[in-house]
Amino acid sequence: MSVGARHNGSAKACRAPSGTSCPAHTRVYRKGKLAAEGFPVEQISDLLDEPDTVVWLDLLQPTREDLGVVTEELGLHPLAVDDAVNEQQRAKLDRYDDHLFLSAYTVHIDPTTAELATGEVAAFITPRALVTVRKSEHIELDALLERWDATADKASSGIGYLLHGLLDLLVDRHFEAVQELDEQIEGLEDVLFDERPRSHELQRRSFEMRKSLVMLRRVVLPMREVVNSLMRRDSDLVDPAMAPYFQDVYDHVLRATEWTESLRDLVSTILETNLTLQGNRLNEVMRSLTSWAALLAVTTAVTGFYGQNVPYPGFGKEWGFVFSLVLLLGITGGLYLFLQKRGWL
Amino acid sequence: MSVGARHNGSAKACRAPSGTSCPAHTRVYRKGKLAAEGFPVEQISDLLDEPDTVVWLDLLQPTREDLGVVTEELGLHPLAVDDAVNEQQRAKLDRYDDHLFLSAYTVHIDPTTAELATGEVAAFITPRALVTVRKSEHIELDALLERWDATADKASSGIGYLLHGLLDLLVDRHFEAVQELDEQIEGLEDVLFDERPRSHELQRRSFEMRKSLVMLRRVVLPMREVVNSLMRRDSDLVDPAMAPYFQDVYDHVLRATEWTESLRDLVSTILETNLTLQGNRLNEVMRSLTSWAALLAVTTAVTGFYGQNVPYPGFGKEWGFVFSLVLLLGITGGLYLFLQKRGWL
Amino acid sequence: MSVGARHNGSAKACRAPSGTSCPAHTRVYRKGKLAAEGFPVEQISDLLDEPDTVVWLDLLQPTREDLGVVTEELGLHPLAVDDAVNEQQRAKLDRYDDHLFLSAYTVHIDPTTAELATGEVAAFITPRALVTVRKSEHIELDALLERWDATADKASSGIGYLLHGLLDLLVDRHFEAVQELDEQIEGLEDVLFDERPRSHELQRRSFEMRKSLVMLRRVVLPMREVVNSLMRRDSDLVDPAMAPYFQDVYDHVLRATEWTESLRDLVSTILETNLTLQGNRLNEVMRSLTSWAALLAVTTAVTGFYGQNVPYPGFGKEWGFVFSLVLLLGITGGLYLFLQKRGWL
Amino acid sequence: MSVGARHNGSAKACRAPSGTSCPAHTRVYRKGKLAAEGFPVEQISDLLDEPDTVVWLDLLQPTREDLGVVTEELGLHPLAVDDAVNEQQRAKLDRYDDHLFLSAYTVHIDPTTAELATGEVAAFITPRALVTVRKSEHIELDALLERWDATADKASSGIGYLLHGLLDLLVDRHFEAVQELDEQIEGLEDVLFDERPRSHELQRRSFEMRKSLVMLRRVVLPMREVVNSLMRRDSDLVDPAMAPYFQDVYDHVLRATEWTESLRDLVSTILETNLTLQGNRLNEVMRSLTSWAALLAVTTAVTGFYGQNVPYPGFGKEWGFVFSLVLLLGITGGLYLFLQKRGWL
Amino acid sequence: MSVGARHNGSAKACRAPSGTSCPAHTRVYRKGKLAAEGFPVEQISDLLDEPDTVVWLDLLQPTREDLGVVTEELGLHPLAVDDAVNEQQRAKLDRYDDHLFLSAYTVHIDPTTAELATGEVAAFITPRALVTVRKSEHIELDALLERWDATADKASSGIGYLLHGLLDLLVDRHFEAVQELDEQIEGLEDVLFDERPRSHELQRRSFEMRKSLVMLRRVVLPMREVVNSLMRRDSDLVDPAMAPYFQDVYDHVLRATEWTESLRDLVSTILETNLTLQGNRLNEVMRSLTSWAALLAVTTAVTGFYGQNVPYPGFGKEWGFVFSLVLLLGITGGLYLFLQKRGWL
Repeated sequence: MSVGARHNGSAKACRAPSGTSCPAHTRVYRKGKLAAEGFPVEQISDLLDEPDTVVWLDLLQPTREDLGVVTEELGLHPLAVDDAVNEQQRAKLDRYDDHLFLSAYTVHIDPTTAELATGEVAAFITPRALVTVRKSEHIELDALLERWDATADKASSGIGYLLHGLLDLLVDRHFEAVQELDEQIEGLEDVLFDERPRSHELQRRSFEMRKSLVMLRRVVLPMREVVNSLMRRDSDLVDPAMAPYFQDVYDHVLRATEWTESLRDLVSTILETNLTLQGNRLNEVMRSLTSWAALLAVTTAVTGFYGQNVPYPGFGKEWGFVFSLVLLLGITGGLYLFLQKRGWL
Repeated sequence: MSVGARHNGSAKACRAPSGTSCPAHTRVYRKGKLAAEGFPVEQISDLLDEPDTVVWLDLLQPTREDLGVVTEELGLHPLAVDDAVNEQQRAKLDRYDDHLFLSAYTVHIDPTTAELATGEVAAFITPRALVTVRKSEHIELDALLERWDATADKASSGIGYLLHGLLDLLVDRHFEAVQELDEQIEGLEDVLFDERPRSHELQRRSFEMRKSLVMLRRVVLPMREVVNSLMRRDSDLVDPAMAPYFQDVYDHVLRATEWTESLRDLVSTILETNLTLQGNRLNEVMRSLTSWAALLAVTTAVTGFYGQNVPYPGFGKEWGFVFSLVLLLGITGGLYLFLQKRGWL
Repeated sequence: MSVGARHNGSAKACRAPSGTSCPAHTRVYRKGKLAAEGFPVEQISDLLDEPDTVVWLDLLQPTREDLGVVTEELGLHPLAVDDAVNEQQRAKLDRYDDHLFLSAYTVHIDPTTAELATGEVAAFITPRALVTVRKSEHIELDALLERWDATADKASSGIGYLLHGLLDLLVDRHFEAVQELDEQIEGLEDVLFDERPRSHELQRRSFEMRKSLVMLRRVVLPMREVVNSLMRRDSDLVDPAMAPYFQDVYDHVLRATEWTESLRDLVSTILETNLTLQGNRLNEVMRSLTSWAALLAVTTAVTGFYGQNVPYPGFGKEWGFVFSLVLLLGITGGLYLFLQKRGWL
Repeated sequence: MSVGARHNGSAKACRAPSGTSCPAHTRVYRKGKLAAEGFPVEQISDLLDEPDTVVWLDLLQPTREDLGVVTEELGLHPLAVDDAVNEQQRAKLDRYDDHLFLSAYTVHIDPTTAELATGEVAAFITPRALVTVRKSEHIELDALLERWDATADKASSGIGYLLHGLLDLLVDRHFEAVQELDEQIEGLEDVLFDERPRSHELQRRSFEMRKSLVMLRRVVLPMREVVNSLMRRDSDLVDPAMAPYFQDVYDHVLRATEWTESLRDLVSTILETNLTLQGNRLNEVMRSLTSWAALLAVTTAVTGFYGQNVPYPGFGKEWGFVFSLVLLLGITGGLYLFLQKRGWL
Repeated sequence: MSVGARHNGSAKACRAPSGTSCPAHTRVYRKGKLAAEGFPVEQISDLLDEPDTVVWLDLLQPTREDLGVVTEELGLHPLAVDDAVNEQQRAKLDRYDDHLFLSAYTVHIDPTTAELATGEVAAFITPRALVTVRKSEHIELDALLERWDATADKASSGIGYLLHGLLDLLVDRHFEAVQELDEQIEGLEDVLFDERPRSHELQRRSFEMRKSLVMLRRVVLPMREVVNSLMRRDSDLVDPAMAPYFQDVYDHVLRATEWTESLRDLVSTILETNLTLQGNRLNEVMRSLTSWAALLAVTTAVTGFYGQNVPYPGFGKEWGFVFSLVLLLGITGGLYLFLQKRGWL
C-alpha cells in the first residue's frame, strides 16, 4: 500500500474486521510524507513504535469495543471514550494526562427549508496520533483528505498539521452555514417589502432561520475557546510554523461568531419591521372598512327613508324618485370622492 | 452488617432512634471498599477514629437536634447547620475552617404541565465524611446509591468519590430537565404553525415553560461556580484521579447552562413568531370583514333602492324586477369574484 | 444604668438635650458585654477613653450640628458628614483615613399596591464606635436591638458584631421585599389566565411591580460591593470569628440580587404573555364580528329583496312569504350552524 | 487688582485684546489664596515663573489663534489644541507628556419639552495651570467661581482643587438632568393610567425622554473612566487631602449612571404598559363594535321581515304591528340587557 | 521623478507592467522627506537596501501573482497573502514573524437610501514598508495622499506616520457614516410625528438604517482592538512622537462605536414609538368605526320600522312622516352630537 493508492469515491471499507466492526480509515505519515493509508487498524501499534511517524485513524460510529483497539495503545481516558461514543457532547477541548479530547460539530443549512443539520465529530489527540470518531456520516471524509493532501507541504508539522486540517474543515462548514443563512436573509428582505405580502411564508422562514441561528450559535461559540486554548497552551502540538494557520482558523471562528450575531440582529430587525408593516396594513384595512361603513350608513339612510310607508314629500311621485336618486348619488358620490381624496378607499 | 446487605426497595429506616428522629442512612468505606451500611448513627464517631475510613450519613428533613449528632463530632459551623435546616438556600459552596458546606437543587419537569419542581439538598463535606441533608423526598436516595455502586472502583478516592456521585446525580437531573423542556418546545413549534391555531394552549404552555426556564436558570447557573471552585481550590478533596470526573461534571454544567440559554432564545422566538402570526390572522380576518361590509353595502343599495316608495323606472313592473335582479346578482357577483381573486374572501 | 434596663416599646428619648436636638440612642459594650445603654451622648468621649469598650450611637434625622458631638471625637470627614445629613445617597462604602462611611437602604413593599418604600440609613464605622444615622423612621430600632441581643455571644467581636447586625437586618429587609414581590407575581399569574380577564388591574399591578423591581435593584445591587469590600479589605473590623457571618450576609445579598433578576424576567414574561393573550382575544372578537357581519349581509339581502316594490315571483302571494321565510331561515340558519361549527360564533 | 474685585453679574470682558479675541477670564492663587483675578492674559507667563502660584484661564469659544497665547507657554500638544477648538469630542481624559486634556459636557433638560441640551467644555491641566475652554455659553462661569469660592479652604491643594470644582460642577449638572428626567417620568406615569388617555402627548413625551436618556448616557458614562483614571493614576494632581473629594465626585458619577439606567428601564416599562393598555382599549372598543353589529343585525332582520311585500302573518293588520313591535323591542331589548350584563356595551 | 510630480486627478497608472498587471502606486520617503513617487514597482527592492528609506506601495485589486513582486522581498506569509487577495476578511491585525497584516474597511452611507457600502483594504506592515491592497475602488487614493501630505512634518516617524494616515482616513470614513446616519435618523423623527403619517416610507427607511447600523457595527467594533493592539504592543512601529496621534485615532474609534450604539438605541426607540403611534391610530379609527356602526343601527331601526307593511301608528299618514322624520333626525342628530363631544367622530 502506498501513497499512490488514493481514496476514490466515498471511502474504503475497513480492512481489519478483527480490529473494528465499524468502517475505519487509516493513514501514516513518516518524516512528513504520507507513507501509507488504508492499512489494517492493528498495525497502528507497530507504526507508533517507529520513530518519526504520525498516525491517523478514523472510525465511523464506533462502539466502545471498536475503540478498544486504540484505547490501551494510546492510553485514552475512559471518560473521553465515553464522550466519543455518546452523542450530544458540548463542543469542547478536554485535557487528560496523555492526550487531548476534542468534540465539535459540522453543520449544514438546508437551502430550501433553512433548517440546520449538525454532525458530531470527536477526536483523540496525542503527540503522534489523531483518532477521529465520526458520529454521523455528515462529516465527509473525502473533504478532509483533500484538505490534507492540498497542504501536504506542512505535513512535517505532524499532529498539528492533521489537527489544523480537521479544524479548518469544521470551521469552514460553520462559515458556509452562516453564509447560506445570510443569503436567505437577503431573500427575506425582498419578500418583506413586497406589494403583496407573503406573510405566512415570511414567518415560517424567519422562524426556521432564528432557530437555526440559535443552534448555530451553540455550535460556533465554544469553538472560540477550543481553538484559542489550543494556540495558547499546546505549544508542543502547534509548532511555530503552524501557529499562523491556527491563528487563521481562529480568525475564521471569530468572524463566524460575529456574523452569526449580526444575522440574529438582522432577523430581529426583519421581524420587528414585519410587525410594524402588519400594523400599517391593519390600519389601512380598518380605514377602508370604516369608509365602507360610512357609505353603507348613507345608502341605508336614504333608501330606508324613501322606503317608509308614510307620505313623505315626493311619496309615490316621479319627482320624489328623482329627488331620492339625486340625494343617493349626490351624498354617496360626494362621500366617496371625499374618502378617495383622503386616501381612505 | 456487610456489603452484601444492599439497599432494597426504597430505603432502610433509621436504626438509631436514640440518635436521630428522622430517617437516616449510613455507609462506611474502608480502604476504598464499602465496609458497612445501615449502621446506627452513633457509631459514626467510632468509625471516624479508625484510619482509612470514609463515612457517609444521610438525613431526611432533620431538625437542628437531629444534626446535633454530628455537629460536634465534625465541627460543623452553626451557620452551616442553619443553612442545612432552613429551606430556600442559594446553590452555593461555602468554606468554613473545618469543612465545606454545599447547597444545591435537584429539579424535575412535569411532562404534562411543563412546571418545574425543585428539591433541595445540603451537604457537609469534611476530608473523611459526607453528610447529605435532603430537605424533600425529591432527591431519590436509590439513584445516588446506584451511582456510587456503579463506580465502586473509584471508591479509593474517598470523599472525592462520594462528592462526585452526588454532584453528577444533581447535574444529570438538571440536564434531564433541560432535555424535557427542549422536547416540549419542539412540540410547541408544531402547534405554532398549525392550520387551526390552538393559541390559548400555546400561550399557557409557553408561559409555563418560560417560567420553568427562569427558575431552572437560577438553579443551574450557580452550579458552575460550585463545581469550578471545587476543582480549582480543593485539591485535597479532589485527587488527581478524580479530576477528570469533576471536569466532566463541569462540562455538563456548562452544557446545561448554554442549553438553557438557547431554550430561552427559542421560546422568545416562538412567542414573537406567534405574535406576528396573530397579526397575520387579524389582517386576514379584517380583510374578509371589509369584504363582507362592501358586499353588504352593495346589497343594501340595490334592494333598498328598489324598496323605495317612489315611482323609479320599473316600479311595480316585471322588467323592473328583472332589472333589479340582474343588478343585484351582477354587482354582488362581480364584487364577490373580484374579492375572491384578490384573496380577500 | 445597667444591662437590665432594656428598651421597651419604641425607643427611649434622648437624655442629652445639650448634646443633640434629635432623638438619640446609645450603648456601650465592655469586654464583649453590654455594659450600659441610654446614657447621655456626651459620655461617649469618656467611654472611648476606656480600653476594651465599643460604643454605639444612633441619631434619628440629625442636623449637621447634632453630628457635631461626635464629628471631632471620632475624626469624621466633612464629606462623610455631608453624606450622612443629605438624603438620596448611593448605597456605598466609602473609606476615609480614620473611619468607614456606610450608606444603605431598608425597603418595604406595600402588600396592597406593590409600591416600594425606602428608608435611608448611614453609618460611621471606626474601630471602636458605630454611629448609625437614620434618615427616616422606616428603620426600626427595635428590630436592630433584638438582633444584637439575640447574638450577644458574638459581642466580643466588637465593631464587627455591631456592623453585622446592622447589615443583616438591612439585607433581610431586602429579602423580604423580594419575597413579597414574588408572592404578588404569583397572584398576577392567576389573574393572567382568568376566564374573565381583569386586564386593567393586571396592568396597573404589573406596572407598579416592575417599577418596584427597578427601584429595588438600584438598592440591592450595590450591597454586593459593600459587603464584599468589607470582607476582603477590612480584616481589622471583621475578625476571623465573624468572617462566616459576613459571608452569610453576602450570600443573602447574592440571592436577593439573583432573585430580583428572576422576578424581572417573570414580570416581562407575564407582560408579553398578556400581550399575546390580548391578541388572541382580539382575534376572537374580530372573528365573531365578521360572522355577525356575514349574517347581517344575508338577512339584509333576503328581506331587502322581498321588500322591493317590483313584482318578483311571489310578490304579494302567500307562497312568496313561505318561500322568503324558507330562504331567510335556511340561509341564516345554515350560515349560523356553519360558523358555530368553525367556532366563530 | 485684588481678591476683593469679585465677579459680578455675568462675567468680565477680556482685558487683553492683544492676547485673545474671545472673552477670557483669569485667576491666580498664591500659596493657597486667591491672589488676583481678571488680569490680562499675557501676565500668565510671568505668574507661572513665580513659585507657589496656580493659574486659571478661561476662554469662551476661542480660535486656534486665541489658544496660541498659552500653547507654547504650557507646552500644549497640537492634537489637544485641535480637540479644544473642534466640537463634538468624546468625554475623555487624554494624557500627553506635559499635560492632561479633559473633554466633558454640561447638560440641561428643558422642563417643558424634556429635550436635552449639551454644552461642551475642554480643559488643559498642567501641574500648575488649568485652562478651561468653553465651547458654548451653556457652561456658566459664575457657578464655577462660586463653587471655588465656597471651598476656598481647599485652595492649597492647587490644581486638584480647581479641577475638583470643575468636575463637581459638571457632574452636578448631569445629576440635575437625571433628576429632572426622573420627575418628568413620574408625570408620565400619571398620564398613563388616566381615564381619558392622552396617548399622543404620552408618546411624544416618552420619545423625547428616551432620546434624552440615550444622549445623557453617552455623556455620563465616559465620566466614570475620566474621574476614575484621575484618582488612580494622577497622584501628583490629586493630593491625599483631595482624594476623598474626588471619590465623592466619582460616587456621584456612579449614581448618575445607575440612575440613568434605571430611568431607561422605567421609560421602557411605561412604553410597554402603554402598549398593553392600548391593546385593552382596542379590545373594549371592538367588543362594543361587535355588540352594535349584533343589535344592528337583529333590527334589520325584524323590520326587514315586516317590510317584505309578501303576505306574512299579520301583513297589513293591527296585530301584525303589535307583534312586530313586541318582537323588535323584545329581541333588541333582551340582547341589549344581555350585552350590558356581560359588560360589552 | 521627484516630489514635485504630484498625483493629479485620479491616480497614475502602473509604470511597471512587467511588475504587476494591476494599477500600482509607489512612494519612497528618505530621512523623513518624500523622495520620489510613481517609480516602477521593481525599484522597491533597491530602495529598501538603502538605509533611512520607507517605502509605500499600493495595489488595486491585485492577483496573487501581482503580489509576488513584494512577497519574497518583504517575506510576506502565504496566509497573509491569501487574506489580501480574498475578499470578506474580518477587520483585524494579524502578527507574523516579519510583518503585520491589517485588514479593514472603508464605509459609505448612500444619502438617499441609507444603504451602507463597504470597501475593503488590506495592508502589509513591515518596519520599513507599507503595502496597501485595495480590494475595491471605494478607497480613494487621493484622500490618503492628501492626508499624508498635510502631515508631512511627521514623516520622520516612518512607517508609523504612513500607518497613522491610513487608519485615520478609515476611521474618519466610519465617523462620517455614523454622522450621516445620525442626520438621517433626525429626519426620521420628523416623519414620525407627522400629522399625515408616511408609515411605509418610515419603515423602509428605518429598516435600511438598522441594517446599515448592524453592518457598520461589524466593521467599526473590531477597529478598537486593531488600534489598541497597535498602541500597546508595537512600540517599534509607533514611536513616542506618534503615540498621541494613535491615541487620537483610538478616541475616534471609541466615539464611533459609542455613537453607533446610541443610534441603535435611537432607531429602536423610533420603531417602538411608531408601533405605539400605530396602535393609537388604530384605536382612533376603531372608535370612529364603532360610532358609524351605532349611527347605522339607529338609522336602520327607524327607517326600517317605518318601512314595515303593518299599520303602525302613523302608517300612511302625514303626521306619521313628520313623526318618523323627527325621530330620525332627533336620534341620529343627538347621537352624532354625543359622539362628537366624546371625540369619537
